[in-house]
Amino acid sequence: MDANPVLAEAVRGNWVENRHRGAFVVMDADGRIIASAGDIERPVFPRSAIKSMQALAIFDRHAVERFHHSSEELALACASHHGEEVHTSRVGRFLERMGLSEATLECGAHQPTNGAAREDLREKHEEPSALHNNCSGKHAGMLSVALAMGVPTAGYVSREHDVQRAVRAAVEAVIGEGLTEDRCGTDGCSIPTWAAPIRAWAHGFARMATGKGLDAGHAAGVQALFNAATTHPLLVAGTGHLDTLVMEAFGGRVMQKGGAEGVQCGAIRDKGFGYALKCDDGNMAASQAMVAALLLKFAEPDEAQRIVLESFARQPTVNVRKTVVGEMRAVGF
Amino acid sequence: MDANPVLAEAVRGNWVENRHRGAFVVMDADGRIIASAGDIERPVFPRSAIKSMQALAIFDRHAVERFHHSSEELALACASHHGEEVHTSRVGRFLERMGLSEATLECGAHQPTNGAAREDLREKHEEPSALHNNCSGKHAGMLSVALAMGVPTAGYVSREHDVQRAVRAAVEAVIGEGLTEDRCGTDGCSIPTWAAPIRAWAHGFARMATGKGLDAGHAAGVQALFNAATTHPLLVAGTGHLDTLVMEAFGGRVMQKGGAEGVQCGAIRDKGFGYALKCDDGNMAASQAMVAALLLKFAEPDEAQRIVLESFARQPTVNVRKTVVGEMRAVGF
Repeated sequence: MDANPVLAEAVRGNWVENRHRGAFVVMDADGRIIASAGDIERPVFPRSAIKSMQALAIFDRHAVERFHHSSEELALACASHHGEEVHTSRVGRFLERMGLSEATLECGAHQPTNGAAREDLREKHEEPSALHNNCSGKHAGMLSVALAMGVPTAGYVSREHDVQRAVRAAVEAVIGEGLTEDRCGTDGCSIPTWAAPIRAWAHGFARMATGKGLDAGHAAGVQALFNAATTHPLLVAGTGHLDTLVMEAFGGRVMQKGGAEGVQCGAIRDKGFGYALKCDDGNMAASQAMVAALLLKFAEPDEAQRIVLESFARQPTVNVRKTVVGEMRAVGF
Repeated sequence: MDANPVLAEAVRGNWVENRHRGAFVVMDADGRIIASAGDIERPVFPRSAIKSMQALAIFDRHAVERFHHSSEELALACASHHGEEVHTSRVGRFLERMGLSEATLECGAHQPTNGAAREDLREKHEEPSALHNNCSGKHAGMLSVALAMGVPTAGYVSREHDVQRAVRAAVEAVIGEGLTEDRCGTDGCSIPTWAAPIRAWAHGFARMATGKGLDAGHAAGVQALFNAATTHPLLVAGTGHLDTLVMEAFGGRVMQKGGAEGVQCGAIRDKGFGYALKCDDGNMAASQAMVAALLLKFAEPDEAQRIVLESFARQPTVNVRKTVVGEMRAVGF
């Protein structure tokens, strides 16, 4: 297998310590490649980067008409949130409004991503609940689909459950191609994840940005989801996170979402571009440097947006005594 | 720059999610290459993987005659310990015996690497001290050098301090070549780290394993350090860590030490081989899979040793609900 190019490197002192290879592609809805590097046909697991695609099942199955989901709920359905109070309280209410509780969630519990939230739990001697799971909003959305379909909620994370079939169908409709059983794994939150080329993910996001190639229902659903996510960027990730800061800075122009193991996807909405990238080794900081460089080049940032992006395109690294000893930086964009 | 080969990969479900490239080399003391992959001439920071080389300054500067360092103290001087009570208590006594305290350490404080030790501190509402720093034993050894040289201890971490000059000279003597200012950075614990090819690090460890090419003082010092480390493997790393488990299993035949950002170095002592490897992207779990595969192939493990190595050559990965969803595994060895 040919090696992808180095797209980020970690420098220590005056020498490069680590190299991070990867591939990226920026596309329009007609499938035209605006720019790319590396092998864009190698299938990769998108993980959480396509939660907004998965959330389209809420619209397909008329859950949104039944529960009149708020913009905040839709943003949480697209979120990898940090388990801050602003997130857990809203996901709790999201479930309550549907007559459910956190006991119905099958994502499992993990410590909040946010450090202060973790500390807060520790000081209260409380264990994290499934509400703190970064995927709890997505799972609440999937439970909404189950209720709207009139199927049992139990086992909704299973590949064979009607909810996951609906989610898979929504993703396939958006990218315009099929997902296959021979490229499937289980995500951190126990739902299936399907590998497809970053070319397909980027094309999907371009179609979502423009509505081109989508049926009217999907096109309207995507608009509602993208508007929700970009209106409530704090709900989609958390304090200080790239996704939150970028969407805050771009004020609706950019929908940006990271996924585990170095995946970044999104849309430059006003340009009608979708983009996707994968850091081959799964390093998240490196993938953030890469996507910041990509947006610096292709999203025409203003000065304030540029400052946010540059803070991720070159990230200082510090040692135990907090001395700056090097940096992670994007290269080759 | 040519790409190094993939030496580890992370699988999720039925698909490869991440790829980790790297280079490795196994050598003898005459500089003969037993086996290698990738670019073995690209200089890499060895980080903590060469603490046993750095500790040779203790012998050069007659600190060992002055303080009659115990085998445990020498093991701690080579250690990246996990901040367990077994470590912090001994480093504390190591310093006391020299009339010093943890206040003299310039490594900075960080949370113990060991989870139970971290939890213990939290329950006592105590902050970690410099004793918990994984490098505190190495720093105690460096303070021993300062005292034996009769120079001020303050600033002993600085590149220009006599202690670091002595450490650099010891490393250069072992690898048989010079380190250069244009390949230098600051390590996590604030001392300098110098990049050199993995070929040089492996050759150094082969010379250490055999004494060939070293002067009599260094040869004796290395024997004492390797014997100390392999006699007290728990002191060199910590509960459950690869370095500890491998050295326990091999009972003196293998000296193994990891360094930050995916470096692994060591010696197969009875064969007179040195080895070194670097995972290009700095992933530690991947580098552990790689070194386990290397030792499976070149260290002629017995059944018990094989079981330990195989547990690192293929490491299961679990999701939030502790379901096994994939594995990290070495490839290409």
